[in-house]
Order: sequence, then structure tokens, then C-alpha cells
Amino acid sequence: MKKSLLAVALLGAFAGVAHAQSAVQIYGTVDAGMIKRTDQTLAIGKRANNTLGFKGTEDLGNGLKALFQLEIRYEPDSGTIEQGGNGVQRPLFQGQSRVGLQGDFGMVRLGRGLTAFQETSTGFEPFHGVPSPVGFQTDLTVAGYTSDPLGLVGNSTNRFSNALFYNSPEFSGFQINTTIATKEANNNAPFVGRGSTAFPQFPANWEAPVNPFSVSGTYKNGPIAAMLAYERNAVEHKLMSAAASMMVSPSLKLMGSYTRQDRATTVLANPKTKAWVLGANYTMGPGKFMAGYGQKTPDGVAKTKQFSLGYEYSLSKRTYLYVDASRKQANVNLATPGVTTKINTYDVGVNHAF
Amino acid sequence: MKKSLLAVALLGAFAGVAHAQSAVQIYGTVDAGMIKRTDQTLAIGKRANNTLGFKGTEDLGNGLKALFQLEIRYEPDSGTIEQGGNGVQRPLFQGQSRVGLQGDFGMVRLGRGLTAFQETSTGFEPFHGVPSPVGFQTDLTVAGYTSDPLGLVGNSTNRFSNALFYNSPEFSGFQINTTIATKEANNNAPFVGRGSTAFPQFPANWEAPVNPFSVSGTYKNGPIAAMLAYERNAVEHKLMSAAASMMVSPSLKLMGSYTRQDRATTVLANPKTKAWVLGANYTMGPGKFMAGYGQKTPDGVAKTKQFSLGYEYSLSKRTYLYVDASRKQANVNLATPGVTTKINTYDVGVNHAF
Amino acid sequence: MKKSLLAVALLGAFAGVAHAQSAVQIYGTVDAGMIKRTDQTLAIGKRANNTLGFKGTEDLGNGLKALFQLEIRYEPDSGTIEQGGNGVQRPLFQGQSRVGLQGDFGMVRLGRGLTAFQETSTGFEPFHGVPSPVGFQTDLTVAGYTSDPLGLVGNSTNRFSNALFYNSPEFSGFQINTTIATKEANNNAPFVGRGSTAFPQFPANWEAPVNPFSVSGTYKNGPIAAMLAYERNAVEHKLMSAAASMMVSPSLKLMGSYTRQDRATTVLANPKTKAWVLGANYTMGPGKFMAGYGQKTPDGVAKTKQFSLGYEYSLSKRTYLYVDASRKQANVNLATPGVTTKINTYDVGVNHAF
Repeated sequence: MKKSLLAVALLGAFAGVAHAQSAVQIYGTVDAGMIKRTDQTLAIGKRANNTLGFKGTEDLGNGLKALFQLEIRYEPDSGTIEQGGNGVQRPLFQGQSRVGLQGDFGMVRLGRGLTAFQETSTGFEPFHGVPSPVGFQTDLTVAGYTSDPLGLVGNSTNRFSNALFYNSPEFSGFQINTTIATKEANNNAPFVGRGSTAFPQFPANWEAPVNPFSVSGTYKNGPIAAMLAYERNAVEHKLMSAAASMMVSPSLKLMGSYTRQDRATTVLANPKTKAWVLGANYTMGPGKFMAGYGQKTPDGVAKTKQFSLGYEYSLSKRTYLYVDASRKQANVNLATPGVTTKINTYDVGVNHAF
Repeated sequence: MKKSLLAVALLGAFAGVAHAQSAVQIYGTVDAGMIKRTDQTLAIGKRANNTLGFKGTEDLGNGLKALFQLEIRYEPDSGTIEQGGNGVQRPLFQGQSRVGLQGDFGMVRLGRGLTAFQETSTGFEPFHGVPSPVGFQTDLTVAGYTSDPLGLVGNSTNRFSNALFYNSPEFSGFQINTTIATKEANNNAPFVGRGSTAFPQFPANWEAPVNPFSVSGTYKNGPIAAMLAYERNAVEHKLMSAAASMMVSPSLKLMGSYTRQDRATTVLANPKTKAWVLGANYTMGPGKFMAGYGQKTPDGVAKTKQFSLGYEYSLSKRTYLYVDASRKQANVNLATPGVTTKINTYDVGVNHAF
Repeated sequence: MKKSLLAVALLGAFAGVAHAQSAVQIYGTVDAGMIKRTDQTLAIGKRANNTLGFKGTEDLGNGLKALFQLEIRYEPDSGTIEQGGNGVQRPLFQGQSRVGLQGDFGMVRLGRGLTAFQETSTGFEPFHGVPSPVGFQTDLTVAGYTSDPLGLVGNSTNRFSNALFYNSPEFSGFQINTTIATKEANNNAPFVGRGSTAFPQFPANWEAPVNPFSVSGTYKNGPIAAMLAYERNAVEHKLMSAAASMMVSPSLKLMGSYTRQDRATTVLANPKTKAWVLGANYTMGPGKFMAGYGQKTPDGVAKTKQFSLGYEYSLSKRTYLYVDASRKQANVNLATPGVTTKINTYDVGVNHAF
């Protein structure tokens, strides 16, 4: 009897710890490797995003949950917070900073994070959405579109600040995700657009004329998944995207996406860009092969063409090695819009989740 | 007997984990909501401070404890570290960064944190000290006073850097709290004061002529609590404050504060400001009503008057929803010192502690 | 039998928590004290580095392990990220940001951290490598050398970014550590060297002409330890160092180091600096005495001489109090290269590990 009491006491103490644990979960990834681009010196850098996050859920009863997530992004090669162009440091919680409630009605969150389109689209990209140039996500999958043109200089281009996020529950495989942001100013740099440097179309720290929003609908049915998305940013650039994937066999997944953006509000000539990406993933034991091909067709500029091959070898559920090779052909100088340059990129590295 | 041994082994292993746990405790809050000010666009932002903290205590025996606390502050709507004026990022551990010892003698800490006055005063404010303009803390409760006029641009105005903090034990309901800072320079911007832009009274990165200090005494006796405080900052602005609260019934708390600051060392005319705030909290089931009214009377400028109503509804011990309405009437243009402007502020949101 | 099952279930649940625990370990130190330098006002600051870190290892089987470590550095007196000269904030994970694999072959890591020489040398310094001027590490132990002259302004001078780290296993007491960095540019400020302000030898954001590398070999045999190191940085400054220590008795440790750097690639006259440090540690119950004397001899400038005494008193395994006194005599004005200034430094404080 005494032993039993001890065990119960132990269980109680244990539950206490388990409860404390459930309040905050710390997680993250470290991804570092060596990268060689034909026209650049050998570099050490990342292939996937590097994260250190804090998240938790609280059961409020009646199927209601409170939840939050704060995610630091960083560069392991230099130890800094994630950097945008020119080495500008992004927000501390660049990954996301959101709080909200989840229940039968779906999930409502407030804060900053990927837009509904940007978050959904990564599921249809052959390199699972890594930001590396060996993948397609940041250039071709989104057709060169930026979700946050009035954000801070160096900020990422696929997030909304000051936003309300809603994800519906799944009905017979269908789900709707929406993101809507306020018009409030975010200390943006001037955005010239149809104006001039002296009189930019959107001056510094400008309030958006419209509420940016993003909506994506997904459908899942056994081996098939599909997405339809529409987004309008703070300067009324419009994006439309459709994508689908299919598990042809337990080890082979095929996928494709088509995206179109229209920048007619800020560009006088050639405001449209179209892009498509086709890809395949093939799993063999602890190894996974990835292949993709895509094109981007901006109005009045030579096509971008990219072909990429990748391989991930899992040492465990949390750790894998990777090696990739990519060839990209794109216009890099707008003064000669018909000319393209070929760039080969190779990388090899390790990705560890914790 | 074997089972018993197993249980003991288990208990030992368990104690090991529990001990490791006790070394660092991770805690925090996420507060996000929608805010509408009469003269501004609808915004997403915070009502309370947003924190992600790391703290711990170590039992040194004989009633002695070592303790530390590091508290990140952030803005969930933009994912950045907490920002001061003009979007300037504050220190990473803006909440506090302190280490010290606690024993029969009280608690001694070194580092950076709220001054004794600023920390104590939040207990007598009807909106429990939230920095939102719907509350009174940051403007009226402190009579417009700043504790750190020679701090970095954008830094908070209620903390001392480079400080020694002492809290006495409680004697028959009485407790004394003191904070004293060094004179060392902190890369401050020039503080014009009685000088000119060319010859500021306190040039950039200036050593304080005196040691800033803050002292507060509190008294608690059943339903009654009271505070008396005095503070002198690095430019010898002086502040005096008195406050009291009373639990009239188990659900009704009344409170009031009176604060006076004197900036005679840096201002030639009208150096004095007085302010008072009266407030009430009424608890009903999971709901809590808050009401407050206050006035600030700066020498030579029209009075500030503020009336605020708030409601918090607890979904659990860790999560509540809130809605507030506030009307403030204040002079906003020193060129017309007798003219006031009315500003209404409304907010609704969620606060989740973890 | 039921009890036994309960205990097993408990053990299982427990193992689950223990496993989750092992994924991320949070650790750190807080060190704060009062410092008085003869020519400066009393200040509050640090003696040792202040850290908040996240690390973990994953057992991959067959003796292979994945490991990562991310270490924040901060200033407890101001709550900011660790600062370099002029208050410039260093990278968030200034301590280190590395990921890698460990096995029979040794340990391979990618990222940013102390170079092989810098990391090894702290073991032969009488104040265990603290960055405080009461110790010898940052000036005399390294003979004024900087490992990262093309790093960001304000960055620490003892780390490589974009580096590959290899530590061999120990063979009969011998171990080899190597660090090699890429040539990639890191947004450095111009480095004038043999050029002029208008035409610096290394312009802003310059690619290193050579791969910086660092190698250290150590030998341990009972009470004896020794080190031999060589390093070449991105501007081809060369460093050679030798050091040894001996436990004369269980409580007395003697140590010494000799270091030489050659800056011939960037300095026309007087490119060489030599330095040596002798030290002793004496442990008595919970107390530890530290003493050191060293000299630095830069070509063409008066010698630097430093004598330091320190005492650490452990309140527990994780917490100690310290008090130090140091006298340093050094040239501070290159216009009068033969003249030295005497500076005394005293400190007293607390160091708490968590």
C-alpha cells in the first residue's frame, strides 16, 4: 500500500513536470553546408531556414485551445539574426510571432507570419520550400512576387505584419486559409513605383491604401492534394496561383504549380509575370531524391529557366545530410532584357532538427 | 522489495530531471489585439507587455538563494524586439537582466530593471500597469516623469541600467525597496536642457553628475496597501509619489495615487507637474471590470484628463480576452499651451501567459 | 503485478520526457559586479562572459552523434546583446552557432565559433580566460592578435565566421584541433593597412585573399598539459603560441604561455609583437586564489606589464563571488611610443551558472 502511494505521489510529481513542460516547447533546426556558385567563391551557408522557436498550447476545455508561437531565425555561419539584402537584420522573431485560439470554428491568430498563399505553396515545391537557390520557392514558385512591399528594408517578402490569420476546419478534404493585414505604416523606405525618386508613389512610412489580404483553398483526397490561391499586397500587386500533387506510388510524388502576378498598379510597361514549376520526389530507404524544372516568363524580359536535382540522406528522424546541383538561366541585367546568364549552384551539408 | 528499489531509482532519476528543470524556467506572455484611435487607422498591437523570459533560483543552504532573471520583450505584430519611439529597438533583455542573492537580509541584485518607484507604482494603477494608452501607468501615474533621461535613444523611461537593487524583508507589513545606479555614461544622445542644440546641458555619452536613485516603502495590512516613493534621475529631476488601495469587499478594490515631479534642474519656467489617478476593479466570476479617472497638471499647460473603462474575461488562469474604451483630453501642441485635443481609444484582444 | 506495470508505465512516460529533454538543453551564466578603474567612475559590469545557450546531441547509433550549440551573449548591466567597441551590438549568437557530427573520427562542425588557438589558449591563462581587463586573455595571452580583421565593425576578435571546425580524438594524450574559414566577404569596414584612407589595402566587404586557418595541438599526461598553436588570419597576420601547465600538488596549478604575432603583410615598420604570461591557481576549500604576471613587447613601443591577483569563493557548484585587483602599465598614445601609463583595476561581483 505504501509503495502504491509512493507511485501515486511520483505520478503526481511527474504530472506536474509534464504540465510545466507542456507550457513551452522549444524547438528548432540548424542547417549548414558548403555552397559553390559558378561565379562566386566557396561559401558556408544554409540551405533550409534556421530556427529556434518557442511554442505552446493550452487546453481551455470544450474543445477550445489557446496557442502561441515565437520563432527566431538566424544564420549559423555568422551567428546573426536572419539577414535580408545588404546584411540588414530581420526581426528577432522572423519565423513568426502569433497568438490565438483554436476550436470547432477553426483557428484564429493575430501577429506576423507567412501569408495564407505563401504558407500553403511550399507543399507543392519539389525541395519542400527551402529558401536556397537550388530550390524554386523564393523565385519561381511565387513568380517573383513580394507579399510585403511596404515592409522594412531587408524584411522578408512572404509575410504580413499586423495581420489576422484564419484557418477553417477541414470539410471533406477542403480547407480555407485567409490572412488580412491592417493599413498601418511600418517604417517602409520610399517605394518609387510610378513616381520618381523625389516623388515616390509610396513615400517613406506610408499607410497602405488598401488592406493587404491572402486566401488559399486546399483539397486533399487520398494520394491527391491541390491548392488555389489569391493575394493582393499593400501596393495592390495581384497574385493568382494553382498547384497540385499526387502520390503515384508510396515512394513517388509528382507535383506542379502555376503562378501569375500583375503589378499594373506600380509598373507602366510589362507588369505581368507568369511561372510554372514541375517536380518529383522519390523515396528509397533513408534516401530521398528530388528533381524539379521550372520557367518564369516576365513581360518583356527573357525567360528564367531552372533545373535542380537534390538528395537527402536521413541519419535519423531528426538529422539528414544533403547534396544538390542546380542550373539556372536568367536575365540579370535589365539594360539587355533579352540576354540570359547561366549559373550553376552546388551544395552539400547537414540539417539537424531539435 | 525490488519494486520498491525500482520506485526509488525512479524517484532518483526523477529528482534529477526536476533539479535540471529548476535551473531555468521559461515563461512569458503574448498579448495581441486590435486598436482604434479616433485619429488613426485600425491597428494590430499590444495592450500589455510581451515577454519571453528565463529565470531561476538556486538554494545555497542556510536560507540563502542565488537568483537570476533575463526577460526578452517583443512586439508580436511585427516580430521585432520591443521598440521605442521612431521604431528604435530596445535592448534584447528589455524586461530585465539581473542576478543576485536572497536571504534573511532581503534581496540584492545587480543589472538593469524597473526602478523601485516604477515597479511598486504598478500595484496602484487600475489597469495593473499595462503600457497601453487605455491605462494610466506610462503617463499619469508617473506624472510624465522619466527615470532614465541619459539612456540610449528609444530606451524605456522607467528603468535604471548599471544599478544595484535592494529589497528589504517585510517587517510587520512594511517593506523598503531601493535602486541606485552608477554615474557611468550610456551612449546617450545630447540632452539640451538649459543649454542649446550647439551646447547641450548634457552632451552625448555624458557621465551623470549624481548617482540616480529610487526608493519606495510599502505597507500591507489585510485589505489595505499603501506606498510612498521618492526618486532622483541622472539629470536631478525629482519625483515624489504616494498611493493606496483597499479591498472594500472580496470583489471590489479601490485605489488612488498622487505623483509630483520637479524638473527645475533642466527647465527654466514651469518645471513642476502634478498628477493623480483614482481607480476601481470589480471581479465577477471569470470577469473583471476596471475603471479609472485621472488628471495631470503641468505648470503652464492645460490639464490632461483621462477616463478609461476596461473588461477582462478569463478563459483560464493563463488566458484572458479584453476590451477597453478610453477618452483622453490633453495638450498636444506646446505653441498653444491652453488648447487640448480629445482622443478616444478602443481595443479588443487576447492575453496568453505561458 | 499491477504496481509493477504502473511503475513500468511511469518509467516509460518518464523516458519520454527525458528524451524530449535531451533534445534541447538550456544553459547560461550571469556575471555582474562593480568595477573601479583608477581613471574612470565606478561602473557596474561583467568579469566573465554572460551567456544564454541552447545545445543538444542526438545519438545516431554506431557511436555517431549529431550535435548543435547556439549561444547568446549579453550585457547584464544594460540588458543588451554583447557589445563591441563604441557600443556596436555583436551577433545574437555571439558565443557560437555550430552544428556537426561526432564519432570515432573526432568531431566536425560548421558555423561560427572560437578558432582552435583561441579556444585552446584559455586553459593556460590564470583567470581561466575571462575577458575582464583584470585577466590576461584578451590582450597579453594572444599578444594583441585578432583572428577576424575583416569581420563586421565591433565584432569579437577571436572567432571565425563561415568556418569548418575539426577536433581529432585523443591519441595517448595528444589531440589536434583545426579551424578553416572560407574567403567569403562579411561586410567588413575598410582595413587601411599599407594603403590610405582613400585606397585601403582591404576595401569594404572584401574577399579574403587566403583562407584563414587555425591549428592547435594539445598534450595531456597526468598533472601536465601543453599546447602548441599556429594561426593565420584573413589579412595573413601570423601567430605562433606555446603554453604549458602543471598541477604541482592537488591544490596548486602553475602555468605559462608565450605568443608571437607578425603583421608584416599590413604594417611597414615594427610588425612583430611578443608576449608571455605566468600564472598560478591555488585552491583552498571553497576558495581559489589566482595570480598572474605578463609582458607584451610590441616592436618600437614601450612594453606592457601587468600583474593581477584574484579570489573566487564558491557558494555552490554553480555560484561564486569574486574579488580582483590588477595593475597594468602600457603605452596608450602611439605619438609617444616610449611612455607608459599605469592603470589599476579592482572588481567585486557574483557569477551564477544555470
